[in-house]
Amino acid sequence: MCARKIAGVLGATGSVGQRFILLLADHPDFELKVLGASPRSAGKKYIDAVNWKQTDLLPEFAKDIVVSECKAENFKECDVVFSGLDAEYAGPIEKEFVEAGLAVVSNAKNYRREADVPLLVPIVNPEHLEIVGEKLARAQSAGQAKPGFIVCISNCSTAGLVAPLKPLVESFGPIDALTTTTLQAISGAGFSPGVPGIDILDNIIPYIGGEEDKMEWETKKILGSLSSDKTTVDLLSDDEMKVSAQCNRVAVSDGHTECISLRFKNRPAPPLADVKKCLQEYVCDAFKMGCHSAPKQTIHVLEQNDRPQPRLDRNRDSGYGVSVGRVREDPVLDFKMVVLSHNTVIGAAGAGILIAEILLAKKYI
Amino acid sequence: MCARKIAGVLGATGSVGQRFILLLADHPDFELKVLGASPRSAGKKYIDAVNWKQTDLLPEFAKDIVVSECKAENFKECDVVFSGLDAEYAGPIEKEFVEAGLAVVSNAKNYRREADVPLLVPIVNPEHLEIVGEKLARAQSAGQAKPGFIVCISNCSTAGLVAPLKPLVESFGPIDALTTTTLQAISGAGFSPGVPGIDILDNIIPYIGGEEDKMEWETKKILGSLSSDKTTVDLLSDDEMKVSAQCNRVAVSDGHTECISLRFKNRPAPPLADVKKCLQEYVCDAFKMGCHSAPKQTIHVLEQNDRPQPRLDRNRDSGYGVSVGRVREDPVLDFKMVVLSHNTVIGAAGAGILIAEILLAKKYI
Amino acid sequence: MCARKIAGVLGATGSVGQRFILLLADHPDFELKVLGASPRSAGKKYIDAVNWKQTDLLPEFAKDIVVSECKAENFKECDVVFSGLDAEYAGPIEKEFVEAGLAVVSNAKNYRREADVPLLVPIVNPEHLEIVGEKLARAQSAGQAKPGFIVCISNCSTAGLVAPLKPLVESFGPIDALTTTTLQAISGAGFSPGVPGIDILDNIIPYIGGEEDKMEWETKKILGSLSSDKTTVDLLSDDEMKVSAQCNRVAVSDGHTECISLRFKNRPAPPLADVKKCLQEYVCDAFKMGCHSAPKQTIHVLEQNDRPQPRLDRNRDSGYGVSVGRVREDPVLDFKMVVLSHNTVIGAAGAGILIAEILLAKKYI
Amino acid sequence: MCARKIAGVLGATGSVGQRFILLLADHPDFELKVLGASPRSAGKKYIDAVNWKQTDLLPEFAKDIVVSECKAENFKECDVVFSGLDAEYAGPIEKEFVEAGLAVVSNAKNYRREADVPLLVPIVNPEHLEIVGEKLARAQSAGQAKPGFIVCISNCSTAGLVAPLKPLVESFGPIDALTTTTLQAISGAGFSPGVPGIDILDNIIPYIGGEEDKMEWETKKILGSLSSDKTTVDLLSDDEMKVSAQCNRVAVSDGHTECISLRFKNRPAPPLADVKKCLQEYVCDAFKMGCHSAPKQTIHVLEQNDRPQPRLDRNRDSGYGVSVGRVREDPVLDFKMVVLSHNTVIGAAGAGILIAEILLAKKYI
Repeated sequence: MCARKIAGVLGATGSVGQRFILLLADHPDFELKVLGASPRSAGKKYIDAVNWKQTDLLPEFAKDIVVSECKAENFKECDVVFSGLDAEYAGPIEKEFVEAGLAVVSNAKNYRREADVPLLVPIVNPEHLEIVGEKLARAQSAGQAKPGFIVCISNCSTAGLVAPLKPLVESFGPIDALTTTTLQAISGAGFSPGVPGIDILDNIIPYIGGEEDKMEWETKKILGSLSSDKTTVDLLSDDEMKVSAQCNRVAVSDGHTECISLRFKNRPAPPLADVKKCLQEYVCDAFKMGCHSAPKQTIHVLEQNDRPQPRLDRNRDSGYGVSVGRVREDPVLDFKMVVLSHNTVIGAAGAGILIAEILLAKKYI
Repeated sequence: MCARKIAGVLGATGSVGQRFILLLADHPDFELKVLGASPRSAGKKYIDAVNWKQTDLLPEFAKDIVVSECKAENFKECDVVFSGLDAEYAGPIEKEFVEAGLAVVSNAKNYRREADVPLLVPIVNPEHLEIVGEKLARAQSAGQAKPGFIVCISNCSTAGLVAPLKPLVESFGPIDALTTTTLQAISGAGFSPGVPGIDILDNIIPYIGGEEDKMEWETKKILGSLSSDKTTVDLLSDDEMKVSAQCNRVAVSDGHTECISLRFKNRPAPPLADVKKCLQEYVCDAFKMGCHSAPKQTIHVLEQNDRPQPRLDRNRDSGYGVSVGRVREDPVLDFKMVVLSHNTVIGAAGAGILIAEILLAKKYI
Repeated sequence: MCARKIAGVLGATGSVGQRFILLLADHPDFELKVLGASPRSAGKKYIDAVNWKQTDLLPEFAKDIVVSECKAENFKECDVVFSGLDAEYAGPIEKEFVEAGLAVVSNAKNYRREADVPLLVPIVNPEHLEIVGEKLARAQSAGQAKPGFIVCISNCSTAGLVAPLKPLVESFGPIDALTTTTLQAISGAGFSPGVPGIDILDNIIPYIGGEEDKMEWETKKILGSLSSDKTTVDLLSDDEMKVSAQCNRVAVSDGHTECISLRFKNRPAPPLADVKKCLQEYVCDAFKMGCHSAPKQTIHVLEQNDRPQPRLDRNRDSGYGVSVGRVREDPVLDFKMVVLSHNTVIGAAGAGILIAEILLAKKYI
Repeated sequence: MCARKIAGVLGATGSVGQRFILLLADHPDFELKVLGASPRSAGKKYIDAVNWKQTDLLPEFAKDIVVSECKAENFKECDVVFSGLDAEYAGPIEKEFVEAGLAVVSNAKNYRREADVPLLVPIVNPEHLEIVGEKLARAQSAGQAKPGFIVCISNCSTAGLVAPLKPLVESFGPIDALTTTTLQAISGAGFSPGVPGIDILDNIIPYIGGEEDKMEWETKKILGSLSSDKTTVDLLSDDEMKVSAQCNRVAVSDGHTECISLRFKNRPAPPLADVKKCLQEYVCDAFKMGCHSAPKQTIHVLEQNDRPQPRLDRNRDSGYGVSVGRVREDPVLDFKMVVLSHNTVIGAAGAGILIAEILLAKKYI
């Protein structure tokens, strides 16, 4: 077995950072060595700096790591750096890391809209990582040092939405209209303070700031194509695909449920049975590459009429598998269905780990 | 003041029956005198027959009423009978009552699809009660005894959906496509046993048996027109209006939230501001008639971006008012918005009371 | 009818302040004229300064009141000032108000431990207000200006606990041992941010900072006696009464449930039936005085074995009545029972209003 | 490796039965071969007979097992039979199984009170299984066939309560007074229908039928001693130990929280630090015997002041470990603390599996 790659985590005391640490404990490919957090935490042992709030215990290996400030010089030994920084801080820090030649996989939204930054749902569009490959190849041909780069993890609710869309588009051609109404878990809001209990008990909040806009344009980037020179991603235009999202916060701890409807561009629409078969048979590239965390079954098509349910289905394939149920014809568009994805796994930290595994499989790190 | 009309309640020990009793306590128009329930309860005092589960206390006046069997002869003094019977029992009992010349306002689904039975959301389509008026008039002209009749209360989730549609159609013409994704409260499922706690805690159930179908066709009946001879209602056809519903049960006690999108037939679509104004200015006929329970404000158009919320907004106008928020343009259809209605008030027992008040105002009882 | 007394509210934009405003809308005795909040809010109309989060709508009368800074000069016209200030700010502000001759009824904890400040549960120990009467009388005899004073509202969980204790002690003599395990609602924690949703969903938090200590000593003050000169309250000693509290936060919006056990000093203990009768027959002095908000039934003794329940019973007597159920013998102490009280009514803002009504009845304001 | 013992499950389609099946999947000691359920299910494949409601998927091995009727002849090949039957049916069925010479480990309450039936919390009183050993030895000496026997699993809330008591009694002598107030999860009520959602959302039910009585006497049996002839267990008398329980149902899916207080008989009470140390150092016999499911750490003593919490701590040691927090002196008795245990693991099916592992380790099966 090869030596494991060295990993670091930015924003290590936060909600996403804590999950990166859990997922990196005993990981076969990565050895977590550097934890970065705010100056207030820097210099303390991690166990003293963190307010650990996960259902799994704080892994032993992380307890005594002394927290560093989020400066590139502290992470120079890292082959990959996972960023769980808040958007408020992520911008300049991640920029400094990339300029210092580091490979950054970020959960922050700051660079998602950059045309030359892959926005990735690792079970959906790993081919967008060719932007990284191209960048590395060009530097190598030019005899330059290995350049840094950043890959962005998608918004949590986008991840669940695009998972079933990818195989459908591959099999049946473009989707020209898509609606989604989400019922999103509160863990997606972090815990500083996240969603107040009094706001969500016996209640629904029919609004998540910025979320609908993110879902609408991120979908068009993730389903978009690489430019011919492999340096950018071209978004689908509004003419090519109309997307409408309505986002709600509900009293669920983990697992985003989405009620989606879609219409294909090509007429006639495919038969219902073919749609289900296409979803069930989809195998994501990450699994074919043998990535450690890739789901054995990318999309679970459930036939019981009352599934998927967050409490019962969110942990399929350790949260990397997406569940789809109630696939049926739609009187307004072509098909409707219910999609469930684990927002903190395939929608956040877990996606970051799988992205790094793909980067490793492609020898980009 | 005139003497109050005599009222009876069928299924008086059930969830809907209990709410009828609460709403009839101290009602200015109706005096509740007869309570009907299963043979198991008949002969007992109501307080001994019922497992009272309301947040308001069991009204004093009802405690000592001796429960009757659900036979028309026991209700013959009643000017109006409210039925909260389960669908399993409602069919033959309600039929017997109508044949015995009684006026029945029913929450059961059994007769909703009959073309000559008004399916009513009292803040939306009271004009469909002309079927009753016509029936009474014809009997009178023919010198016959006053005939019995039945008016059906709509499904709870339909009530919220059609409330904003009515003024929009009146102002801007037909809606040709409509989608709704519901987040429905558990009180709608009654309590025998209703939704199990373990199924709904930290969870969503993306399915309610029969509900989507009900919403789709009931909408077409409620927005449909009276036949020219005023004896039936003509449903809108699928060509006239396409409706698609996705129904979910969530951990909310009372109040159904619905995320709806709609497209008008006429082009161009009206301006957003006109849509909001139309909703805000709508005054239901029941209010104009002076009905006791009619909402002063039929539709509350909320401008805060995170409203309506069930816990905060469900009790507006004692639950007879509907709240609409987040009215905005929709990239796929024309407009989208969030609708909140109180499922046990305007969506069930409360609707029955208001229907009876309209029947009284029209001198049909 | 006499002119209403002028009232002001400190901390008007906060959770407790909002409830003071609701309770003062249309109050027969008080007219709310002055709203005080932080300098950040001062100068704005209340509707623009507040993030209103109550289930009742913001009362019309309050919307256009211009918020003042919390300085005594701004409240000089007030006959009574209700303070909903956070403990962080309450100390010097309330002191200034008292020194300026104002009557302050405060929900903050800052002055509760002062021996010459009445700590009041208005359905339990209004006689402690004689401290105020004595102070006023002395000033009057001395020809001094009417002095200011402060009355503190008890901690929310203490209020429920002491309600049944008072009549029991009056009838059966001292209680020498008392245990309580609380299941407390999240509204008690306010909303800035209060209890995070992710911490309370499908969970219990077996700790509320400072709460157990507060319950233990506040009980000894509230059940304590006036000094002979009526200037202070003498706490019960640990020898006279041992109190042990275990406090938990649970997923309930409003209503604190407490499982209590107690042992009387006198042997033999009274019969169970007498204990129930004593509780049921207790009529608080505030009701006898005719106070507007006083509960008609101070303590509701429920005989159904699964009551009281917060959702069903918290609003009895508009939240001013306390419910007690499952009164039974205890194998370890003498009796055990379940007590439910509305934490934001009798345990916070509501108590403040009733205290002011008593002050008015006694002509102290 | 030895051949695995053959196991059967009674009541296989119910809540407890489903958990037995999960825990027996891939178990190193047991091979589950026979599933018994009602005549309605008998003859069907398990996957067709069950409404599977676990968060883990139905194990492959169980899907095609054809369900049998609950008759001993169908289980004669079984070395051990786990019973998840409802109390309504368990009595005669379990009796028939024992008479047929089978070893039964039962979650039903029917035989718990029999003096010659061990009532077991496997991390607490495995020594009571000597009753089984004695029975088997006597039969062997007498040249009789191996007799059947039954071991009862304790009530779920009792299991958590007695776990910390055992080491305390061993170290510091008898406990003469014990109070517990429980906050119990809804999974303990099964799902036919279990606790209705509308009863538990934003609510507490301060009553669980029969639970307090069970906790009070079961504790006295589990902490009781074997008779000198090893044929029965002698309960502690009321004079030896007074126990008082107050039981509440709360909105938690899994994990019973208990706030307990206790007083030792011996004076002076031990120092607080010794109490904590005693709990922390306790190693249950099942772990010493090398049982597969025995917790590595029997009791986790948590020092953070807001722990244990059900969502964060219920799965320690796969649910076989018990968490204790907030150990502190009690003003009324000697010590108080919060105990959390997983009600469906150490409090039900999981306990059954560990009991069978102990039986195997002792060569009783």
